[in-house]
Amino acid sequence: MPSILILNGPNLNLLGQRQPEVYGTTTLADVEALCRAEAEALGIALEFMQSNHEGALVDAIHGAVGRHDGLIINAGAYTHTSIALLDAVTSVALPAVEVHLSNVYAREDFRHQSYLARAALGIIAGFGAQSYILALQALNARLAS
Amino acid sequence: MPSILILNGPNLNLLGQRQPEVYGTTTLADVEALCRAEAEALGIALEFMQSNHEGALVDAIHGAVGRHDGLIINAGAYTHTSIALLDAVTSVALPAVEVHLSNVYAREDFRHQSYLARAALGIIAGFGAQSYILALQALNARLAS
Amino acid sequence: MPSILILNGPNLNLLGQRQPEVYGTTTLADVEALCRAEAEALGIALEFMQSNHEGALVDAIHGAVGRHDGLIINAGAYTHTSIALLDAVTSVALPAVEVHLSNVYAREDFRHQSYLARAALGIIAGFGAQSYILALQALNARLAS
Amino acid sequence: MPSILILNGPNLNLLGQRQPEVYGTTTLADVEALCRAEAEALGIALEFMQSNHEGALVDAIHGAVGRHDGLIINAGAYTHTSIALLDAVTSVALPAVEVHLSNVYAREDFRHQSYLARAALGIIAGFGAQSYILALQALNARLAS
Amino acid sequence: MPSILILNGPNLNLLGQRQPEVYGTTTLADVEALCRAEAEALGIALEFMQSNHEGALVDAIHGAVGRHDGLIINAGAYTHTSIALLDAVTSVALPAVEVHLSNVYAREDFRHQSYLARAALGIIAGFGAQSYILALQALNARLAS
Amino acid sequence: MPSILILNGPNLNLLGQRQPEVYGTTTLADVEALCRAEAEALGIALEFMQSNHEGALVDAIHGAVGRHDGLIINAGAYTHTSIALLDAVTSVALPAVEVHLSNVYAREDFRHQSYLARAALGIIAGFGAQSYILALQALNARLAS
Amino acid sequence: MPSILILNGPNLNLLGQRQPEVYGTTTLADVEALCRAEAEALGIALEFMQSNHEGALVDAIHGAVGRHDGLIINAGAYTHTSIALLDAVTSVALPAVEVHLSNVYAREDFRHQSYLARAALGIIAGFGAQSYILALQALNARLAS
Amino acid sequence: MPSILILNGPNLNLLGQRQPEVYGTTTLADVEALCRAEAEALGIALEFMQSNHEGALVDAIHGAVGRHDGLIINAGAYTHTSIALLDAVTSVALPAVEVHLSNVYAREDFRHQSYLARAALGIIAGFGAQSYILALQALNARLAS
Amino acid sequence: MPSILILNGPNLNLLGQRQPEVYGTTTLADVEALCRAEAEALGIALEFMQSNHEGALVDAIHGAVGRHDGLIINAGAYTHTSIALLDAVTSVALPAVEVHLSNVYAREDFRHQSYLARAALGIIAGFGAQSYILALQALNARLAS
Amino acid sequence: MPSILILNGPNLNLLGQRQPEVYGTTTLADVEALCRAEAEALGIALEFMQSNHEGALVDAIHGAVGRHDGLIINAGAYTHTSIALLDAVTSVALPAVEVHLSNVYAREDFRHQSYLARAALGIIAGFGAQSYILALQALNARLAS
Amino acid sequence: MPSILILNGPNLNLLGQRQPEVYGTTTLADVEALCRAEAEALGIALEFMQSNHEGALVDAIHGAVGRHDGLIINAGAYTHTSIALLDAVTSVALPAVEVHLSNVYAREDFRHQSYLARAALGIIAGFGAQSYILALQALNARLAS
Amino acid sequence: MPSILILNGPNLNLLGQRQPEVYGTTTLADVEALCRAEAEALGIALEFMQSNHEGALVDAIHGAVGRHDGLIINAGAYTHTSIALLDAVTSVALPAVEVHLSNVYAREDFRHQSYLARAALGIIAGFGAQSYILALQALNARLAS
Repeated sequence: MPSILILNGPNLNLLGQRQPEVYGTTTLADVEALCRAEAEALGIALEFMQSNHEGALVDAIHGAVGRHDGLIINAGAYTHTSIALLDAVTSVALPAVEVHLSNVYAREDFRHQSYLARAALGIIAGFGAQSYILALQALNARLAS
Repeated sequence: MPSILILNGPNLNLLGQRQPEVYGTTTLADVEALCRAEAEALGIALEFMQSNHEGALVDAIHGAVGRHDGLIINAGAYTHTSIALLDAVTSVALPAVEVHLSNVYAREDFRHQSYLARAALGIIAGFGAQSYILALQALNARLAS
Repeated sequence: MPSILILNGPNLNLLGQRQPEVYGTTTLADVEALCRAEAEALGIALEFMQSNHEGALVDAIHGAVGRHDGLIINAGAYTHTSIALLDAVTSVALPAVEVHLSNVYAREDFRHQSYLARAALGIIAGFGAQSYILALQALNARLAS
Repeated sequence: MPSILILNGPNLNLLGQRQPEVYGTTTLADVEALCRAEAEALGIALEFMQSNHEGALVDAIHGAVGRHDGLIINAGAYTHTSIALLDAVTSVALPAVEVHLSNVYAREDFRHQSYLARAALGIIAGFGAQSYILALQALNARLAS
Repeated sequence: MPSILILNGPNLNLLGQRQPEVYGTTTLADVEALCRAEAEALGIALEFMQSNHEGALVDAIHGAVGRHDGLIINAGAYTHTSIALLDAVTSVALPAVEVHLSNVYAREDFRHQSYLARAALGIIAGFGAQSYILALQALNARLAS
Repeated sequence: MPSILILNGPNLNLLGQRQPEVYGTTTLADVEALCRAEAEALGIALEFMQSNHEGALVDAIHGAVGRHDGLIINAGAYTHTSIALLDAVTSVALPAVEVHLSNVYAREDFRHQSYLARAALGIIAGFGAQSYILALQALNARLAS
Repeated sequence: MPSILILNGPNLNLLGQRQPEVYGTTTLADVEALCRAEAEALGIALEFMQSNHEGALVDAIHGAVGRHDGLIINAGAYTHTSIALLDAVTSVALPAVEVHLSNVYAREDFRHQSYLARAALGIIAGFGAQSYILALQALNARLAS
Repeated sequence: MPSILILNGPNLNLLGQRQPEVYGTTTLADVEALCRAEAEALGIALEFMQSNHEGALVDAIHGAVGRHDGLIINAGAYTHTSIALLDAVTSVALPAVEVHLSNVYAREDFRHQSYLARAALGIIAGFGAQSYILALQALNARLAS
Repeated sequence: MPSILILNGPNLNLLGQRQPEVYGTTTLADVEALCRAEAEALGIALEFMQSNHEGALVDAIHGAVGRHDGLIINAGAYTHTSIALLDAVTSVALPAVEVHLSNVYAREDFRHQSYLARAALGIIAGFGAQSYILALQALNARLAS
Repeated sequence: MPSILILNGPNLNLLGQRQPEVYGTTTLADVEALCRAEAEALGIALEFMQSNHEGALVDAIHGAVGRHDGLIINAGAYTHTSIALLDAVTSVALPAVEVHLSNVYAREDFRHQSYLARAALGIIAGFGAQSYILALQALNARLAS
Repeated sequence: MPSILILNGPNLNLLGQRQPEVYGTTTLADVEALCRAEAEALGIALEFMQSNHEGALVDAIHGAVGRHDGLIINAGAYTHTSIALLDAVTSVALPAVEVHLSNVYAREDFRHQSYLARAALGIIAGFGAQSYILALQALNARLAS
Repeated sequence: MPSILILNGPNLNLLGQRQPEVYGTTTLADVEALCRAEAEALGIALEFMQSNHEGALVDAIHGAVGRHDGLIINAGAYTHTSIALLDAVTSVALPAVEVHLSNVYAREDFRHQSYLARAALGIIAGFGAQSYILALQALNARLAS
């Protein structure tokens, strides 16, 4: 039974808790529940974590070696500035999917740059919580191939 | 029953026909068959077309008004150079998902720019034919919401 | 009696047909009617066409040689990306006026660049359908001088 | 009876007075006379001024409030360097048309940038003195709408 | 008793007079009154002027030598384009504080550049009329140190 | 009684402790004491913290929700590189003032860029410890309005 | 007997027909005749076509598979803007030579960029119709090696 | 007897009056006296003026027509920002020499750009007051040739 | 006896543990052992640490004051993005040598930028574990001088 | 009988002597022999030289005046950095063809820039030693025309 | 009696010998004669040399130490590309004047950049052979001061 | 016994001879003596040369083939501008170490670019003459491995 680690970066802990009239009411716990349901349906084990610390995300990627078979990463703002996360994914050589809740390529120019994408299998952006579900399916298919 | 138009841009007609040792043997007809199977499972009507002509793709997007409820677009090389396609999608105001077989953000710099993405719901790139299947699921969910 | 060809580029066929609450209800047929009325008043023969195909626009510019005395071109999105249109206007050596319905210099940065302008007599932008009327007057005056 | 202020920026006072073999013999006084004739035909009151001083042009734009209904501005070289003129037009919230005698977009690169255009209704460039006449018509139509 | 010159650049004379529903109703006279009250409380002499002319602002900075002990400058649009003002402040070697009513660093990119800042003690931006009061306090403290 | 959180970023803990002949002898504890005195005078509650960890600063901004009414942030070097701090301030939707001890706009070019400024009310830079006092006054006035 | 397809892009159909005093009197038919003579001498079969449509050029490159052994491409203005042509040549994996009548590297800056060159064997530019003859020799030698 | 107008731009009036320990004690009056002595020796009539106003400098260049045979311009900070001065010199078609007291090409990057130089005969920079004397000799030789 | 702190940044903990067929089998513990042997030979005390956390590296640099005489820093990916590390080294004013296992100047462009290098004595890159040994020798020589 | 000078720049002397498994075994002497054979067939006199010194190449271009009728130049790395070679070719006003063994436009970005091309008749790149033969034919045709 | 070395860079040996209808008939020997006459008048010893070799120019600058009191350098094309010449002038610490026959700042953009200017006293450009005479006077005055 | 060639580029011959109060008194002969002592200790043969000529350095690199086993190159200013040196090192395929006396990455921006580094094993910069000693050790270790 394959195991996947889903990593969430800075500020994603606030999802759905602040300004629901703007960002909706889906919380990160809701996203986790949706992912767990999908993982169960797919027969995948799941670990789900969030951190605002770039270093903690690097540590988590390192810690996935030997415990997980693939990564789903919503690195939030670190997507655009962190070479360390790129190097971490490259070092562990686990298949990784980059996800975003919003369509980052339709936002400010500084969000169009992704260091992480250089080491990812692929990118799914713009579908809210469903981005994670699609990533689980994509990664599951890759692990099964 | 919602209907979706899947558009394929330049050179995608050659998929799987040339250099299978490099690009694999999946043809565009195979992709279409996979999409049709998924559409049937989801209860979606589907139109699937390919053209190497930028103008023909613009025409097709225009023609989708009143006939389709959403668009999935793999604009190939036109993704990076065509403002006309961006304007077409903006004009018809249909929900659109940008898909790519490969992870364009891990290729040459000139493939990191997407005009189309500014008008898309979201982007799915890097999962081969599965990118289309994920896009169908994402768009179906959006149409149902 | 001088003759002028008015060329309209990609997506202009949708004018006034989609989202009238946003873009107004003037259609391209309305623009054509206004132009025909003005041409009649000025004693100018007029041909009016639209295409979403860059190549078709190039063909039309070529075809104007020997049949028309000047060009009015709203190249839409191709204004910003087409060197082929620039070369076409340069090749036929007919006086050409670039028009735009909107003030493109007040929109996104990628709309501030115009290849076509390098070969045009001048530019009229931002006055809706009236941009065409003003261009007819300007070109007529030039042809008469 | 609507009133329009026509502003002319630096070096336009020399029009037609220096090097007529190069720039032609139309003087700024000739341009003014043409504008006055057109204004009379359109039933518009007109004020026409020229200054080489950026600050004087800003002052004049401010002074137009309550006295004029619209502005036609040929800011000459200040078109490309003056944020103060942009802010002035934005502040007085009068409709403004940017005009140029020559097609500035076919000249040196530093003449392709226009701060003023961001606050203008539209732009007319390249038709010599006729640029002003077309601008009067365009602005008159706008004021009448 | 120290004396401070407060300089206001282009378009600030319109403050509160135009479009109060957008920009508020505080006029430059109100700003001056607030500054005079604060200056009195701090025991500072004050001169307060406004000009739309870059040269007049340079003249005023020169004129401050021997008459004032420090400068507070809201150079408006000239902040971003005037090397002459930078040189003027450098030449007179008086301590200067750059102020802005709005947070210019959250507006268009061309407002993020400040030549003046290279010669200023510091910058206060974004607090409306209070920006001036804070600048008076900051400059007073500097003069007293 | 309003409450304000003052955040200090990397290296500010060394203030006044190292190279006093260069940077002066004011320590961060001195800055805190000055702020507490001012806060008491203004009737504001105050929390004051410092961290060298980008993630810890993000956490602290999140933790301010429900406990503080505004933020004063000297993000040090993270000002110029952290999109995560920008997103954090945007997410919590608390009024925030960006402060700097030195005039960062007169230092190296890479210090002229501020992501944080895009979400701030305003900026105060260049007045040493007084920058904080001015920020307290500015934020207090905003909270009272 | 090897077969070569010679493709000509936008505006090349006008060669020698317009402004012979500027561009000379050699027509594209003349170029074709010269190429056919050279091909006969070299024992090469030849197809020669021209289109103003980017998509038609892509189609023609695809159509060359199985029918031709190499390509000579004068893509005209599309040389500088078309990633689709680059991808087409890469996809069909036929040896291709890029030719230009003029020395494009001595013209405007935007003509120095060639997407097509990334997939070409080599480039021959600046020798008028002889560029094609030289390309035939070069490609013939490559096919024979 | 040829006549030359020497124009001095912003902040040059302060020359030698402020911070003599840094900039030396030569005043603009001293420069003028040196120039007048040299002019007398060369048999040239001389007008010498200074203004901090860009518009006044443009006016003065215009006024030179019919009264002077050549221009020597130290435009100070306007050298780097004023297209209006460039256009003024081009319009009056008088030979002009650009001078600077300091070697501007060894100072900040924004002082390496000169619009004025595009219309000047030549440039002399870095020799203090002697730059003017050399310019007089150069211009005199040109006028005599 | 001088003491040196060797700092290792993100992902260096994985050295030699992952993909030994690609990166070799030398672990960070091996590097540490080599350094300890060299330090003993040189008569230097040594502290050796690694962290994936930018803030922890800043803290460690601060903590070196009073405990160590110099720094050797392999900041990994933070080399290219961290102004905070630059400021930390500048603040503590300890001599620092930047080291890299690989020749970063022969890798991707984004690895050619080093903020840290602005505050370093020098750089040694490209010699694997030996880079550290050379840095110890260089720093020892500097401390002894 | 026309005479042509073929110049070869830095490192071309090593052709075929080092790493034949990578670069092939054709030496520069082989290239010369091929050229001499072709020259004889064409009835052209030939001088063939190589130097690693930019100045020696400039000297050789100067020395061609009065002795040769045209130039073929493979400037190697100096193609991309030498304005002196551009000026030399411009000064002697001899027809020149730029050649390269490899397709430099498909290599690193810094090899896409050619100063020399601005003064050349044309460019031939990518055909190995045959590039020279084609250049001889092209130049011979030009000299004969 | 002070001694000055005048250095002339690449292609200046051709001055007046090639295309006199374009560049005039003044040769470098004429320039030298004019300089020698002026030097005699000024009581200066003179050495005058020219080389097309960057290294020879560096050697000559080194050789000036102890033999000459100042340098006049027309580095030709090396002005824009040679850091070695900049370093040479900086190393020998002799006063140097940069001269050009033409106004390089009115030519192609790549001629606006001067490395050499960073180490020069000043620049004189645009006055033909007279540029050298003016430079002799300027340098003589500096040596006498 | 391995043999190493140490190459020194432009201006390094002046080391320690000019301005010893600024640059110290170590001459290039001193550097050579230190290197010879270290080489003897390591059992390496050494050749040591310096030239101000780019071409001579290229020649020397070529000449090293068959005579030396590795290169140490301080290319001075040519580091930043010479593609010819990069190509020379690549061509001879000898291991090469780039050295600099100063930390070039802490100097002007134009010294941060190194073409040579793309072909080097590694870089050692900033340690004065010791940079060479460290390079000898590094290269010796590589040759022994």
